[in-house]
Amino acid sequence: MPPTRVTLWNENRHERHKPEVAAIYPRGIHNTLADHLSKSADFTLRTGTLDDPEHGLDAAVVDRSDVLVWWGHAHHADVADAIVDRVHRRVLDGMGLLVLHSAHFSKIFKRLMGTSCDLKWREDKDEREICWVTRPGHPIRQGIDDHFILPHEEMYGEYFDVPEPECTFLISSFSGGEVFRSGMTWTRGAGRIVYFRPGHESFPTYHDKNVLRIIENAVRWLTPTRPPKPLDFGKRLRGWIDHPNPA
Amino acid sequence: MPPTRVTLWNENRHERHKPEVAAIYPRGIHNTLADHLSKSADFTLRTGTLDDPEHGLDAAVVDRSDVLVWWGHAHHADVADAIVDRVHRRVLDGMGLLVLHSAHFSKIFKRLMGTSCDLKWREDKDEREICWVTRPGHPIRQGIDDHFILPHEEMYGEYFDVPEPECTFLISSFSGGEVFRSGMTWTRGAGRIVYFRPGHESFPTYHDKNVLRIIENAVRWLTPTRPPKPLDFGKRLRGWIDHPNPA
Amino acid sequence: MPPTRVTLWNENRHERHKPEVAAIYPRGIHNTLADHLSKSADFTLRTGTLDDPEHGLDAAVVDRSDVLVWWGHAHHADVADAIVDRVHRRVLDGMGLLVLHSAHFSKIFKRLMGTSCDLKWREDKDEREICWVTRPGHPIRQGIDDHFILPHEEMYGEYFDVPEPECTFLISSFSGGEVFRSGMTWTRGAGRIVYFRPGHESFPTYHDKNVLRIIENAVRWLTPTRPPKPLDFGKRLRGWIDHPNPA
Amino acid sequence: MPPTRVTLWNENRHERHKPEVAAIYPRGIHNTLADHLSKSADFTLRTGTLDDPEHGLDAAVVDRSDVLVWWGHAHHADVADAIVDRVHRRVLDGMGLLVLHSAHFSKIFKRLMGTSCDLKWREDKDEREICWVTRPGHPIRQGIDDHFILPHEEMYGEYFDVPEPECTFLISSFSGGEVFRSGMTWTRGAGRIVYFRPGHESFPTYHDKNVLRIIENAVRWLTPTRPPKPLDFGKRLRGWIDHPNPA
Repeated sequence: MPPTRVTLWNENRHERHKPEVAAIYPRGIHNTLADHLSKSADFTLRTGTLDDPEHGLDAAVVDRSDVLVWWGHAHHADVADAIVDRVHRRVLDGMGLLVLHSAHFSKIFKRLMGTSCDLKWREDKDEREICWVTRPGHPIRQGIDDHFILPHEEMYGEYFDVPEPECTFLISSFSGGEVFRSGMTWTRGAGRIVYFRPGHESFPTYHDKNVLRIIENAVRWLTPTRPPKPLDFGKRLRGWIDHPNPA
Repeated sequence: MPPTRVTLWNENRHERHKPEVAAIYPRGIHNTLADHLSKSADFTLRTGTLDDPEHGLDAAVVDRSDVLVWWGHAHHADVADAIVDRVHRRVLDGMGLLVLHSAHFSKIFKRLMGTSCDLKWREDKDEREICWVTRPGHPIRQGIDDHFILPHEEMYGEYFDVPEPECTFLISSFSGGEVFRSGMTWTRGAGRIVYFRPGHESFPTYHDKNVLRIIENAVRWLTPTRPPKPLDFGKRLRGWIDHPNPA
Repeated sequence: MPPTRVTLWNENRHERHKPEVAAIYPRGIHNTLADHLSKSADFTLRTGTLDDPEHGLDAAVVDRSDVLVWWGHAHHADVADAIVDRVHRRVLDGMGLLVLHSAHFSKIFKRLMGTSCDLKWREDKDEREICWVTRPGHPIRQGIDDHFILPHEEMYGEYFDVPEPECTFLISSFSGGEVFRSGMTWTRGAGRIVYFRPGHESFPTYHDKNVLRIIENAVRWLTPTRPPKPLDFGKRLRGWIDHPNPA
Repeated sequence: MPPTRVTLWNENRHERHKPEVAAIYPRGIHNTLADHLSKSADFTLRTGTLDDPEHGLDAAVVDRSDVLVWWGHAHHADVADAIVDRVHRRVLDGMGLLVLHSAHFSKIFKRLMGTSCDLKWREDKDEREICWVTRPGHPIRQGIDDHFILPHEEMYGEYFDVPEPECTFLISSFSGGEVFRSGMTWTRGAGRIVYFRPGHESFPTYHDKNVLRIIENAVRWLTPTRPPKPLDFGKRLRGWIDHPNPA
């Protein structure tokens, strides 16, 4: 199998403007993730950020991406609608999409979900997150124990306004008593989508080995199985189904 | 229980411009459906059409609708985005939505699904549709045998590009050999959504007793269970959960 | 609509043998639930217990039950297989089943799920359960705020070995940090199934107004929509589908 | 990755007792499937049949199988319950299970589904099956066009009494007008399950390239992702979650 072509997209403004975030992710969250994934020969990696031309997501990049990883937080509105349209079409055509943490409010995720994607939240220095596996045989939990702990994270709480997922593989509890469906999957068109909750920019979450492992597993699982030809809709004359199957 | 407030929405242009459609639905598809539902005291009915002011869907109407039934075909693009936004918010807040036939391509359905909602199709005078029940205990199939036949209908064929439904209650076969998931349900926010396939304007489908029964059942099933207060998101201080539950 | 015929089944041994349980439920958990449901004219109520003849579930009772509520804990093995077969057939035929707390290990629930139904657990005097609504528009949450608190409950923790539910309407967190999918629904044949977690016998959980409300809502939601004739399988000659539909 | 250890199980009585079946599958359906899978180095193959000691499924074989493929038809009752228990435990522990055609009535499938698994059927020399892909991006449809045709097959018709699947990847229509969900997936415990409809013994279905491709794809997709340690249930003391995660 050829390597999976992964594009790591990051808003990348906190890292440039907030010293406390830059201290944790000096080269940006996207490069932290790239450093991890680059240890495997199964991936070819590319990055893009909000302030790149076309956000680093020109047609050639999107068309050659098998999996897109998305982190955004405070500047979702700055993402151009034309780029969202492009990514949306590509997901329906089969590209996998991994949506991280505060990207629950990104335009592309809301477009794909059809809901507000809203939730409860709290930033608190003493918030501990415990993540529990709720689908033991799913490839995304490979190598992960039945739970893992993030000593400091932002709280996200239910109700999380997303469509009923096809699979809930992770549920979190927080010190304050809230719960959250932290790992979920959906399909839209030929494309698979994973939402993975942890990753507030002010904590070293993307240096955690369990978090990195789940991201790596998710990217593998999101690698598309291409339909043998483009999805094909529209008018059909009676009898067309008897044409030979080019399988 | 107070009656369910049902708004029946119809593009209502075929009926005014095509004599052969007017012959089947002289007062429009919306009024044909209203005539059926008006036999029950459980509903209060209202109608709206594309060429009404605000498409008959001003804020007062939408806010006072418990269930919205939507038929559209050739003029989806003429529905104003602001009205689609209004209906979308109302569905997330709990209003039920019944999407009929060619409304698979309506703006509101595509917004809620997040996919292209595309499909294969054929209009053929000799196309017979057989509808098979695939969820025997669902309230939507109440009074319906294990299958029913529509002697003349338009063909819709898979792949139908919608998210995996929460329930597939009906699958059709067509004379040409195609199949279609003709009855499906989803939830978005607090609102339930039903897609029900039959209903091409050039056939008397909405006079069929099985079709009318499913529409009536669907409207009942879509009647919202209101949350005790509006859905509530956003920031929470530690300890807020200990406040008394006003249930 | 005729009233829903509800049978409340309880193992009813703790209440007879443990004074501390009898102090909370002097006439048994089944009668506590019956007292609540009897306030509505929508139900006709019957009870059965393990030590009744045929466990109180003879064929006439089972055949005339629309919804069966099941509480069991330490004596699942004493339920006769023939009775389990009878209840199983009746569920597939459309009877609703509400499975409470430790009945996760009942024979009938394991038969319907096809899994071990195992979980983590802890009894601890200082365990608080917070139950969070994760499906805001579901009829089962009617009248329930976005969360409610049970100050003392047994802990159940994930992974809970049940099939992916059709709907997860409630997720709990516990003081010890665990989480649990506390409200779930499935369909088997024409019958609907609800699992609702709270209800350890040593706590007054079934006197809690939120718990009672959910049980009442669940019984209403589980009330069957009968197929117009019994589910019908087996051999079919070509052309049988053209026989008139008796809908 | 080490090869997937596949066990192909077949009732293997039709092939020995009916010349017309032996003409199509001289060495049995299991060996026909083995011949196809043996072309890939990704599998190590083993076979078992009903009349082998312990049906060819002794503990050593089951414990060393990653995926089990099951074909049975007329002699489901002859499969020993102890063997069914063994296979059931192994599926919950992560082994994939591919259930073919008339094995819808096998003890192991009924045990895992919790339903009757009944359906409508007809054997007719002029029955054509058209199989339609309803999940374009699923790995199981890799290399398969949007439909394929089996010129002669047994008819299976809805309602098929199985739990709502996690994914319906294939729906069939038949010449007689019936439809059937021919490709479905479920999870039970850590194990994945696929049902794939085609394969009546009197037709050369298992020589069809599309059918063989789907079986091969399904076996790959069913290959387990092992939890890092056995699924772990039962009593937990407060504070156990703080022990280091051995991930």
